[in-house]
Amino acid sequence: MSATDKAEARPPMRDALVAAAFRLFLERGYEQTTVDDIVTLAGVGRRSFFRYFPSKEDVVFPDHERCLADMTAFLAASGTEHEPVRRVCEAARLVLLMYAENPSFSVQRYRLTKQVPGLRAYEVSVVWRYERALAEYLRGRFTGRRDGHLRADVIAAAVVAAHNNALRSWLRSDGRGEATATVDRALEYVRSAFGPHPEPSPDERPTPAGEPPRAAVARPEDVVVIVSRRGTPLWRVVQEIETALGRD
Amino acid sequence: MSATDKAEARPPMRDALVAAAFRLFLERGYEQTTVDDIVTLAGVGRRSFFRYFPSKEDVVFPDHERCLADMTAFLAASGTEHEPVRRVCEAARLVLLMYAENPSFSVQRYRLTKQVPGLRAYEVSVVWRYERALAEYLRGRFTGRRDGHLRADVIAAAVVAAHNNALRSWLRSDGRGEATATVDRALEYVRSAFGPHPEPSPDERPTPAGEPPRAAVARPEDVVVIVSRRGTPLWRVVQEIETALGRD
Repeated sequence: MSATDKAEARPPMRDALVAAAFRLFLERGYEQTTVDDIVTLAGVGRRSFFRYFPSKEDVVFPDHERCLADMTAFLAASGTEHEPVRRVCEAARLVLLMYAENPSFSVQRYRLTKQVPGLRAYEVSVVWRYERALAEYLRGRFTGRRDGHLRADVIAAAVVAAHNNALRSWLRSDGRGEATATVDRALEYVRSAFGPHPEPSPDERPTPAGEPPRAAVARPEDVVVIVSRRGTPLWRVVQEIETALGRD
Repeated sequence: MSATDKAEARPPMRDALVAAAFRLFLERGYEQTTVDDIVTLAGVGRRSFFRYFPSKEDVVFPDHERCLADMTAFLAASGTEHEPVRRVCEAARLVLLMYAENPSFSVQRYRLTKQVPGLRAYEVSVVWRYERALAEYLRGRFTGRRDGHLRADVIAAAVVAAHNNALRSWLRSDGRGEATATVDRALEYVRSAFGPHPEPSPDERPTPAGEPPRAAVARPEDVVVIVSRRGTPLWRVVQEIETALGRD
């Protein structure tokens, strides 16, 4: 019965309600559209609407619950072999992919959300739930570390802010730019600030003439000498120092 | 008429409404208390309540509007002589000071907010407004910098997360700990990640035997040599490198 399972995961009636709602929101405005208007256009009863959406606001963001569940499952399936900052960046990327699945719908919703204060408040509360999911995972990974909870909360907030900055850039471009490249670059900034093993983004890779910085432990044992070419990305220098100093 | 001005800034009727509201919230619960109950206990009319508070939720957080205005004014009065990351940390500290002004009220409200989902949502939206105020200031200061808006948004989010982590620690201790020391330590973590001129927290200061790292520009012009004692806080090394490499 896999066809039925699939239908239950994304039931056509739910999709029809979302489509009807957005058609009316765009035609009449969000405030001027009632749940009754939506169910009439979709050709279903009020109870069907409320089976899928607790309120009119929820129909504007039909995929966040699924995405939050996906993110939580992704993080729960992580092992100690996954570097934690990299892992939360990958988790944040799942949200971006949800938006990028359907660019025109995402852009429409972005415009609608900007106009309706109630929807902005809803969005802020959803963002907060993503942030808490990332922070809870990091708190677990940082158990026993000095200031583990503080680090977890700060890094989760930074990841979410970087993601949202990139997401909004992409939405403002009407979904025409490269969503994943934009978000990866933004997340790389967070990893360069907090993560132990950042990777170069394409425009930060050393020029052919560049050389990676070299760190060497000199005599006496407690002095570290770093030799670096001017223009080397700072994160590469920091990475080299961290390795040399044996920090986590 | 300065006495009148002062009375307008913190009118006794407003304070009486807050006191009446909290007495009822604690006795009966937030949901079970109506605006009518509050005005009856305070001995004023409904219109007086709504003159000060747009809704019942607003009476729970009577000082955030003033604090947001103070923060915005503080940031607007900043000059180019103020290092921007340090400045937003100082701005965030204003929020902490508001909470620390009245510890028992802040602790009561913290407990109430944890129990009432609507108040948590309100708080999340207020936090968002603080974050945007800090981000807008930083965006202005980072104008012309590569990825200026991204940096601004990420740093603002990190500052708010660090502040809130420290604030909640203090509230969980029933307002008994040293609020400012806790928040300063948390903000120092953010400054060590992003700010160009962090100051050592007491437990991170170099040991008497320690020496600051030394960076020297060697021949040829484009090679930088950094000599650092093992155990030097990483932020000090990074600071030295940034200075040597002439980064902003």
